[in-house]
Amino acid sequence: MQLIETVERWRKTLDAERLAGASVGLVPTMGYLHEGHAALIRRAARECDVVGVTVFVNPLQFGPTEDLAAYPRDLDADCALAARCEASFVFAPAVEEMYPQPLRTAVSVGDLGARWEGASRPGHFEGVATVVAKLFAQAGPCRAYFGEKDFQQLAVIRRLTLDLSLPVDVVGCPTVREHDLLALSSRNVYLTPDERKVAPCLYEALLAGAAEARARGATPDSVRAVIERLIVAVPQFTLDYVAVVDPSTLTPASALSGDIRLLVAARLGRARLIDNMGVTV
Amino acid sequence: MQLIETVERWRKTLDAERLAGASVGLVPTMGYLHEGHAALIRRAARECDVVGVTVFVNPLQFGPTEDLAAYPRDLDADCALAARCEASFVFAPAVEEMYPQPLRTAVSVGDLGARWEGASRPGHFEGVATVVAKLFAQAGPCRAYFGEKDFQQLAVIRRLTLDLSLPVDVVGCPTVREHDLLALSSRNVYLTPDERKVAPCLYEALLAGAAEARARGATPDSVRAVIERLIVAVPQFTLDYVAVVDPSTLTPASALSGDIRLLVAARLGRARLIDNMGVTV
Repeated sequence: MQLIETVERWRKTLDAERLAGASVGLVPTMGYLHEGHAALIRRAARECDVVGVTVFVNPLQFGPTEDLAAYPRDLDADCALAARCEASFVFAPAVEEMYPQPLRTAVSVGDLGARWEGASRPGHFEGVATVVAKLFAQAGPCRAYFGEKDFQQLAVIRRLTLDLSLPVDVVGCPTVREHDLLALSSRNVYLTPDERKVAPCLYEALLAGAAEARARGATPDSVRAVIERLIVAVPQFTLDYVAVVDPSTLTPASALSGDIRLLVAARLGRARLIDNMGVTV
Repeated sequence: MQLIETVERWRKTLDAERLAGASVGLVPTMGYLHEGHAALIRRAARECDVVGVTVFVNPLQFGPTEDLAAYPRDLDADCALAARCEASFVFAPAVEEMYPQPLRTAVSVGDLGARWEGASRPGHFEGVATVVAKLFAQAGPCRAYFGEKDFQQLAVIRRLTLDLSLPVDVVGCPTVREHDLLALSSRNVYLTPDERKVAPCLYEALLAGAAEARARGATPDSVRAVIERLIVAVPQFTLDYVAVVDPSTLTPASALSGDIRLLVAARLGRARLIDNMGVTV
């Protein structure tokens, strides 16, 4: 496993692999890798000849009051995990290497990035779209693996890849969960032991919402109400939003038919947790 | 010379050329090619193994009251010119091929696209930046040739290429002019014979501005005043703007030292003409 820190060397390395006939798998991350990332890397290693993991805590996607400085980092552990999962390369550029001067260019995805997480975190998806467009341009043609845990992020990335004709196959992968079904997240380290105990309520509320969605007479509003009630019942949570949406446009579902997606975000102590679940009605 | 109309075939064609070791030159155009485009294509053919000319009248960069429908088109003549200049490929996608569904993604370049042409044509440079990012993603690693005639466009494209790490060398080429020094432009066909006669005043005004810039005691304001006076003196012109700017940031020059750029835009009958000139003081 090779650690690469400059854009030039990263680009040349992947170009050489492709020239030699290898297919490239890309796993873009903000580091502090957990079993969710490990699943992405292992899948990429099964499906591609070489796998590059990018580790970059992207300042553009953090709001001014968010946890950029506190965001957990451990590059040595990340490299070890990547190697165990059969990645060939870790690309971990410094901020000055990625952004040698302040960017003037921004990539936005309109409505798709304005709702839900975008409403709670203004500018977040513009930061995501911009860095992902840049990471894709640096990596060149590849298959890129993202977790469904960040469901709206995945929709944003699929859309910008399509709209800008980027030579990348975007692959969404199922969320990996703890034994108690809390979705894995690097931000779970912010939870105190007491908070950690109640954290799975988020998933349980989604499960109850999915059950409601399949019940006779249910509506998008009744599904949302079920989920909200269960989260609000846990005093440690501060609910941010619950949404019942069309999985491709992320607009509120007007009826419960076909594929729908349940989205939830809530604050728990220092952490802001998100989760989601697909339901086919 | 091969005409290509689908993104998929275009991408595969250039990928195969690169895989075979060829360097790729790209000349993005809106068609209705003239000797200015010919100079770009010939230069690309001298510097690259294969040259692709893209012909696409990009709706995104036209305002609602602009000349999208009237914009001149002649694909047969474009292919003939491209072949004469030793292009290997012309890529001329239909609008539905480039934009199978309305784009949600937009690329913007901040201040750089907001001034001058951007102020007169709201949304213009966002449309340019978005289609160029897409054309670059479709073409893959290449050298891309643009005329200095559209000086702000060139600055916008250089900047987005840098900011998004696109694998493209952007090459700016000198403006090609008629015998009376009017800058070549596809929009010159809009001029009546009388308008055509006075059109070179734009260039003459820039020349006078450059002479003023080198004169003792001159200031950015005095340079601008010289240019304005000469254009306003021609009753057929409606002046849009005159600017004396830093050539990389396009902000107004605070003093006449080093490299500066003179920009001008004016309406002449149905045409809106732009021109520019570099001066080293």
